[in-house]
Amino acid sequence: MQGHFITLEGGEGSGKTTVLDLVYKELSDLGYSVLVTREPGGIPIAEYIREIILNPNNTQMEKRTEALLYAAARRQHLIEVIVPALERGQVVLCDRFIDSSLVYQGYARGIGMEEVMAINHFAIGDLYPELTLFFDVEPEEGLARIAQNENREKNRLDLEKLTFHKKVYEGYHLLLNKYPDRIKRIDAKKSIPEVTSETVERILIKLKG
Amino acid sequence: MQGHFITLEGGEGSGKTTVLDLVYKELSDLGYSVLVTREPGGIPIAEYIREIILNPNNTQMEKRTEALLYAAARRQHLIEVIVPALERGQVVLCDRFIDSSLVYQGYARGIGMEEVMAINHFAIGDLYPELTLFFDVEPEEGLARIAQNENREKNRLDLEKLTFHKKVYEGYHLLLNKYPDRIKRIDAKKSIPEVTSETVERILIKLKG
Repeated sequence: MQGHFITLEGGEGSGKTTVLDLVYKELSDLGYSVLVTREPGGIPIAEYIREIILNPNNTQMEKRTEALLYAAARRQHLIEVIVPALERGQVVLCDRFIDSSLVYQGYARGIGMEEVMAINHFAIGDLYPELTLFFDVEPEEGLARIAQNENREKNRLDLEKLTFHKKVYEGYHLLLNKYPDRIKRIDAKKSIPEVTSETVERILIKLKG
Repeated sequence: MQGHFITLEGGEGSGKTTVLDLVYKELSDLGYSVLVTREPGGIPIAEYIREIILNPNNTQMEKRTEALLYAAARRQHLIEVIVPALERGQVVLCDRFIDSSLVYQGYARGIGMEEVMAINHFAIGDLYPELTLFFDVEPEEGLARIAQNENREKNRLDLEKLTFHKKVYEGYHLLLNKYPDRIKRIDAKKSIPEVTSETVERILIKLKG
């Protein structure tokens, strides 16, 4: 495949979604054909799956059920959105991917990262991102950002306790140490313009490499 | 756990669902507390998942997505229905379980039995059935039975081609050879009363064993 597959990761309120729009614009201005996406990405099957996961009435959702549903939605989005874009030679920037599952389900919910890796390996096969940018912000600050932004829709995950988000943060740092070649840290406490330019810089190193 | 976990397997039209009602009655008359169930089993989360799988409009469904969804519905049904029944000491008779996924997704759709085993192992953990009864009928005969029964609702799976059902049949025989201690063959070409009494006999050997 001709394209480049890059993912962005981080806790709630890490700013990656805001920055992504700006990065898209900068890369497009440089002449790259860029696709920004996030699961479920408008793919009907993946949207239906995500509705089940995020429905606040589904309080009986068992954690392994949830992990399998995320992996299913990931697979469908990968096949219908990411693979065709890579085949067209595009730069694909995906907001959250396999590392979110490893951290949220595997580590923070306590299923175990290796077990969650097994079902995600089933879902993605060889299609690992070639670069993953981790937006590093302490959970206290990330959650404070969310609280200030009243327009942001709250879902079941935002309502988790602070201890959960601290585990998420810890989990991302474990992955950062485990996959130093693939995952690079972005200091997301800086201003939006600074974070944007650091992100663009990291991506350009990969695209030109 | 005090109870007994037994599963019934077989191709379309193998008669297991019909026989199951009769087996339930016989075992109940003998004084056993029996629970007959099948995924999604009235469990809302599992029902929602099954709707996605069986919706004939979801023609874009990728085979690995489907396998992950089956595993997710299996997990939720296991946790909400089977485990509580086993804890109450009941005999649980489940119409299809892990072997259906190994055969339909792993073998007939060509994902590979070991890969499908990996995600199902994630879903069920140590809760393998202690006895599995395979209802053995050639696919030609099974499909002819279905065609005669106009009351039976057709879904996306019934509409598969004969070659697919032949692969399913082959897959079940592979499992029968692979797990001879767990999986026992029932000659389901016999009459319903004969199949019922053979099934009850096999179950009683396990319950009294």
